[in-house]
Amino acid sequence: MIKASIVGASGYSGAEILRLLANHKEVEIVVATSNKHAKKHVSDVYPNLTVDIEYIPYNSDEIKIKSDVIFTALPHGISAGLVKDLYTGENKIIDISADFRLNNKVDYQKWYKLDHPAEALLSEAVYGLPEINKDKIKSANLVANPGCYPTSVILALAPMLKYQMAENIVINSLSGVSGAGAAANEATRFGTCHDNVTAYKVGGVHQHIGEIEQELKLINGSEVKVNFTPHLIPLSRGIYTTVVCDLKKDYTAKHLLNHFESFYQDDYFVNILKEGSYPELKAVVGSNFCQIGIEVNEEKNKAFIMCVIDNLVKGAAGQAVQNMNLMFGLEEWQSLESYGLYP
Amino acid sequence: MIKASIVGASGYSGAEILRLLANHKEVEIVVATSNKHAKKHVSDVYPNLTVDIEYIPYNSDEIKIKSDVIFTALPHGISAGLVKDLYTGENKIIDISADFRLNNKVDYQKWYKLDHPAEALLSEAVYGLPEINKDKIKSANLVANPGCYPTSVILALAPMLKYQMAENIVINSLSGVSGAGAAANEATRFGTCHDNVTAYKVGGVHQHIGEIEQELKLINGSEVKVNFTPHLIPLSRGIYTTVVCDLKKDYTAKHLLNHFESFYQDDYFVNILKEGSYPELKAVVGSNFCQIGIEVNEEKNKAFIMCVIDNLVKGAAGQAVQNMNLMFGLEEWQSLESYGLYP
Amino acid sequence: MIKASIVGASGYSGAEILRLLANHKEVEIVVATSNKHAKKHVSDVYPNLTVDIEYIPYNSDEIKIKSDVIFTALPHGISAGLVKDLYTGENKIIDISADFRLNNKVDYQKWYKLDHPAEALLSEAVYGLPEINKDKIKSANLVANPGCYPTSVILALAPMLKYQMAENIVINSLSGVSGAGAAANEATRFGTCHDNVTAYKVGGVHQHIGEIEQELKLINGSEVKVNFTPHLIPLSRGIYTTVVCDLKKDYTAKHLLNHFESFYQDDYFVNILKEGSYPELKAVVGSNFCQIGIEVNEEKNKAFIMCVIDNLVKGAAGQAVQNMNLMFGLEEWQSLESYGLYP
Amino acid sequence: MIKASIVGASGYSGAEILRLLANHKEVEIVVATSNKHAKKHVSDVYPNLTVDIEYIPYNSDEIKIKSDVIFTALPHGISAGLVKDLYTGENKIIDISADFRLNNKVDYQKWYKLDHPAEALLSEAVYGLPEINKDKIKSANLVANPGCYPTSVILALAPMLKYQMAENIVINSLSGVSGAGAAANEATRFGTCHDNVTAYKVGGVHQHIGEIEQELKLINGSEVKVNFTPHLIPLSRGIYTTVVCDLKKDYTAKHLLNHFESFYQDDYFVNILKEGSYPELKAVVGSNFCQIGIEVNEEKNKAFIMCVIDNLVKGAAGQAVQNMNLMFGLEEWQSLESYGLYP
Repeated sequence: MIKASIVGASGYSGAEILRLLANHKEVEIVVATSNKHAKKHVSDVYPNLTVDIEYIPYNSDEIKIKSDVIFTALPHGISAGLVKDLYTGENKIIDISADFRLNNKVDYQKWYKLDHPAEALLSEAVYGLPEINKDKIKSANLVANPGCYPTSVILALAPMLKYQMAENIVINSLSGVSGAGAAANEATRFGTCHDNVTAYKVGGVHQHIGEIEQELKLINGSEVKVNFTPHLIPLSRGIYTTVVCDLKKDYTAKHLLNHFESFYQDDYFVNILKEGSYPELKAVVGSNFCQIGIEVNEEKNKAFIMCVIDNLVKGAAGQAVQNMNLMFGLEEWQSLESYGLYP
Repeated sequence: MIKASIVGASGYSGAEILRLLANHKEVEIVVATSNKHAKKHVSDVYPNLTVDIEYIPYNSDEIKIKSDVIFTALPHGISAGLVKDLYTGENKIIDISADFRLNNKVDYQKWYKLDHPAEALLSEAVYGLPEINKDKIKSANLVANPGCYPTSVILALAPMLKYQMAENIVINSLSGVSGAGAAANEATRFGTCHDNVTAYKVGGVHQHIGEIEQELKLINGSEVKVNFTPHLIPLSRGIYTTVVCDLKKDYTAKHLLNHFESFYQDDYFVNILKEGSYPELKAVVGSNFCQIGIEVNEEKNKAFIMCVIDNLVKGAAGQAVQNMNLMFGLEEWQSLESYGLYP
Repeated sequence: MIKASIVGASGYSGAEILRLLANHKEVEIVVATSNKHAKKHVSDVYPNLTVDIEYIPYNSDEIKIKSDVIFTALPHGISAGLVKDLYTGENKIIDISADFRLNNKVDYQKWYKLDHPAEALLSEAVYGLPEINKDKIKSANLVANPGCYPTSVILALAPMLKYQMAENIVINSLSGVSGAGAAANEATRFGTCHDNVTAYKVGGVHQHIGEIEQELKLINGSEVKVNFTPHLIPLSRGIYTTVVCDLKKDYTAKHLLNHFESFYQDDYFVNILKEGSYPELKAVVGSNFCQIGIEVNEEKNKAFIMCVIDNLVKGAAGQAVQNMNLMFGLEEWQSLESYGLYP
Repeated sequence: MIKASIVGASGYSGAEILRLLANHKEVEIVVATSNKHAKKHVSDVYPNLTVDIEYIPYNSDEIKIKSDVIFTALPHGISAGLVKDLYTGENKIIDISADFRLNNKVDYQKWYKLDHPAEALLSEAVYGLPEINKDKIKSANLVANPGCYPTSVILALAPMLKYQMAENIVINSLSGVSGAGAAANEATRFGTCHDNVTAYKVGGVHQHIGEIEQELKLINGSEVKVNFTPHLIPLSRGIYTTVVCDLKKDYTAKHLLNHFESFYQDDYFVNILKEGSYPELKAVVGSNFCQIGIEVNEEKNKAFIMCVIDNLVKGAAGQAVQNMNLMFGLEEWQSLESYGLYP
C-alpha cells in the first residue's frame, strides 16, 4: 500500500483528495493535517466523508517518516515553504498550490507579488498535466498540479498550438463558486452568488494567465498571448471554457475534431464530442473527465472550442490523484473511474 | 461475471443503474433497452455516460437468454407485465417500479387505480430494503425495489416502531426534481422549479403512503398510520425527510441515538449522527448512504428524526445494485463506495 | 413627504427597506446608517440600489431631528438600546429586530438569554402583523415588526385558532438563505448551502417559537403549543410553511377555505387559493403577498395548511413599510404593489 | 387610460407584460389572449399574477375595437401575420417577436428560413431600442421590440461603434433558461438545466446575429461583423454579455467609462459602473435596468465590456412597456421603477 499524507486536508481541494483516496485500493491515508480543525473528525467538517480519520496539526517530521507521497494543498506562498520542509528527494510530493507551476522566480514574482519561498526546487518540479507531460510525471519526485482554469484552457488549445493552427485567442471561462475556495466571505456568500454572475479580474490580470501562457508557449514553440476573462456562475463545481480563435488555415470542424481525437487518443480522461455536439458541464461534474466540443465558422475562419471539467476533480484533486497513479506505476484511472452525475 | 440487463435504461433510474454498473467489477452489462432512444449511444442521451453501449428496443427473448439479472425500470402498470414476461424462476429480477411493492392486489388497486398485471407473482416478490429484509433478499428471485420516499421514511422510523416507541406520526418530505422522473412537462420545467417550492398530493393521497404503512405495520406488528406531505424543492437529487412523532415513554435524544446505532450496527450505508448534529442533504448526494439525526423535546415528549438519501441512488438505482450484490453473494457495497460530493 | 430614516441599512432587511422606500411616492429617505459601510454609496454595497444615497454612521440626534419615522434594523439586543435612544413619543419607530416582539421581559430572557435593554418600552410596542392588529398599528408609535417564520405561521393558523378549530400542531418551515442574514460565515457560504438542505435549531428551541406561541395564545384565548422545525433550503428568498394539525370538528377543505377567505376578506396581501391548489413559493418572491392553500384528510381528520411569503418582504421589510403606511394613514399597499417574479 | 391588449399573454414575455402593466397607473388591460389557456384565470397559469383577468381566445376584431395599443408576443413567423391583421395605422402595435426586427425580407429569409408574412409592414417598423432610437419610437405606430441578446450587445457596443473605436469583436453571452421560452421540453427540463452550462448555436448561426449586425452597422456607418456564442446557465432570468474587442486607438478604461457615461447621460435605465467595478447580474434581475462595466488591457490594447440585463424585462417585456410609454408621451420609466432584487 502506498502511504499518503494530505497537508491542508480541510480546504476544498484537500478534502476532495481525501474523498478520492479513501476508496483507492492501493493507498492508505496516514496523515490528514488541518491546523484549524485539529482533533476533529473529518466528518465533523465534511459530513460526506464518514471515514475514520482525525485531522492533526501539521508536523513535518511525522509526515516525512510515514509517507510515500505527500499532497500539499495550501495557499500559494505558504505551500512552497512546506514543500521545502518535506521534500527529501526520496519521497514524492504533489503540490496543489500555484507555487511550483511557474518555472522561474521572475514570473512568480510578477504574477503572485511574492519572492519565491523555495527557489531551488523550481527546477525539480514537473507541470502535472498528464495529457501533455505523462512521461515526465512518471519519473518526477515533485509535481506542480495545474490550476483549474489552465487545465481547461490548455486541454482546449494544446492540439491547436502544437501545430500552430490558431492565433488571436479569446478565452471566456465560467467557474463554479468552489473555485474561490472554502473561505467564507462576502464574495462566496450564498446571498451574493446565488442567481448571480460576475466577471472578475478582468482585463488580463488573473494569475492563471502566467501559467497558461507559459505552458502554451512550451507546446507551441513560441510565445502565445491570450485574452482571458473569468466569471463566477451560480453552481458549486465545474468550469466551462469557451475559446474563440482565428484559424491560420482553412479547417473544418470535422478536420479539427479528427485532429483532437488523434491528439488525445491515449488519454483516458479526455472525450472529444462528435460534430455538432457541444459539451454540457454536468456531464463531467463529480468525475475526472474532460469533454471538448468544436465548431468552425468557415466564412469568418474562426474556431470555437468548448471544454468542460470539474474544477475540484480534473482541475485539482482528481488530477493530483491521476498524477500520483502515474508516479507510482498504477493505471492512471485508479479510484477515478466514476462518471459525472446526471441529472 | 454477472450478466445484467436494464429494461428502461433511458429513464433517470435506469440510467443511474447504468452509471453504477458500468464500473462494477463483477458485472457485465449485456442489454440496455430504450424504445424511445433505440440505436442511439447511451452518451447521446446521458452525456456523462461515455460508455460503449447502444440502446436497443425491448426484446424479452434476447434478454432472458443473455441475463443473469434483469433490472426493470419502467412506469408502474407497465413494469409488471414485462416482469411476468421475463421471469423464469431461474433468473433474478429487480423491479424498480412500484408494481411489486404492495403485497396484495387490493392495496395495489387502491393506490394505483389499476388491476395488478401480474398478480401471481406478488407472493414471490421480496420488498428490497436491505436494512430490514437482508436475509430474504439474499435468497429472492424477484425483488421489489422500494420507493424513494418510503426508503427515507422507513429507515427513519423502523427502530422506533420495531419497539413501539412512537405514535402520532407527521412526516414532511422534500424531494429534488429528479424524483418526478425524466419526462419533460410544465411541472418539471426549469422555469417552474428553480427558486420554487411546492407541496403536492397533499392530505394523504400520495401513492407511497400505501407502501410506507404496509412496511411499518410489518415492522411494528400492528397497524401504523402516517400523515405524509411531499414537497418539490429546487435541486436535482436528494430527499430530506423530517419526522415528528410522540414518544410513548420518556426517551432522551442520547437514548434514541444509541438505539438507532445499535439497530443499524451491521448496515454499511446507514450513518447515525452524533447528538446535536442534524443531517445535511448534500452529504449523501451522489452516494448510496443514508444519514439520520435525532432530537427530542423532553418537555413536549416529541421526537424529531431527520433522514437524508439521494433519491436516485439509495432511493432507486443504488439500492437496486445493493440488492443485486446481496442476491449474488457479493459485498453489499460493491460499486457503491463513492462518498457524496461536498461542496 | 414623510421623512424616513433607516438605522442599519446595510443588512439585508435594512437594504430591502431602502429598496421599497426609494420608490415610495410619499416618502423621502433622509438618513441611512451603516457604521461598517459609512461614506460608501449604497450601490457600492447593494449594486441593485442605484439610488443617490450615502451611508452615514449612526447619530441619534441627527436622526431624531430629521425623521418622522425611523426603521431600526439591527440585531436583537442592540436594537432595543437604540430605540430607547431614538424614541421621543412624538416620532414613530418600526423595529425590525426581535426586541419588542415578546411582550414581557421574562419571555425575552427565556428566548434570547439577555436582560431586556429597554424594558419600559415593552408596553408601548404593538405587534406589527397588520392582518391581525390593524387598528392598533394605526395608532401606534412603536411597532415591533414580526419575525419571518412567525408571519407565515400566524397567518396560516390565526383563522383556525381564533375559533378553536385546531390542536396538536406540527409546523415544518423552509427558509431561503437570506433568512440567516448578511453575515458571511461557513453556514451561509455558497458551497455549504447550494444543493443542500438542513434542519436547524430542531426540537423546539428556535427563538421564534416564543413569538409564535405568544401571538397564537392572544388569538386563541388560551395557551397554544407548537412543534416547529425550521430548515434552510437552497434559494435566496422565501418561506414555505406547512402546518399539519388535528381538526376539532369535521371540516372539509372547502369549509376551511371559505372560512379563511372570509377571515382575510379585507386583507390586501393575503390570497387564499382555490380548492385543490397549493402554494408555489415563487408566486410571492419579490412581493409583499402571502398565499395560503388548505387540504383536509377527512378520514384522519387532519388539516394541512401551506403558507408562503417572501421572508425579506412580507417577512421583514415589506411588512415594515405596510406598517408605516398604516401608521401614517396611507393605503397599506403603497410602494408594495409589485407582484412576485415568475419564472 | 390607455387601453392595452396582449396577444399571447401566457408565454413568458406576454405574462411579464401583464405583470408590468397590471400596476401601470395610466393603463387598463382590456384583453389578454391565450388560445391554450382560454377561459382560465391568469393566476391559474401564473400564480404570481393574482389579477382579475381571464384569458380569452384570439379575436382580431374585438382587439382592434377595444385597444389603443396591442402587444403581440407570439413566436416569429406567426406574429407577423397577426400584426398584419391588427394593424390599422391608427392603433399602435409593439411586436415582441423577431418578425419586424430585420428591416428587409432577404435577411429575414436568411436568418429565419421563412418568407416574411407581412412584407409591406417592414418599412413601418421602428427598431425599439429606446437608448438608440428614442425619437423614432415616439412617433412610431409599429415597434419591433429588440431581442434579449441584441439588447445587451448593442448597448455594450453602441458607444464604441458610433465613433469607430473598436474592431475584431468577440461576444460571449450567458442567458438564464427563461430565454428559451415557456415550452416544456428536454432542453428546458430542470434535470437538464440545473447545475449545468451549455453553449448552443455555436459558430455564428444564432438568429440574433442578423439583428445585431444590422443595428451595429446602422450605428457604425459601415458593416460590422461579430463572433457571438450564446450559453445557457442555471438561473431563470438574466443575460450576462462579455465583449472583447480590439481598440483602434489607445484608450484607457477611464476614458471609455467617461465616454459611455456621456453617451448614455439621458438614459434612465443604463448605469455605467465606476472604474474597477464589473456588473453583477443580480443587480438588474426583476428590473428594467442595464449595467455596464469596462476594463482595458493597455498592453494588449483590448477592451472588455460587460453588460447585464434581465432578459424578460429590459430584454423583452420591460422594454416593450418602455416603448409604449414613449409612444404615448409618458415618462419612459412609468411602472418600470422597481430595482433589482438583491440578495
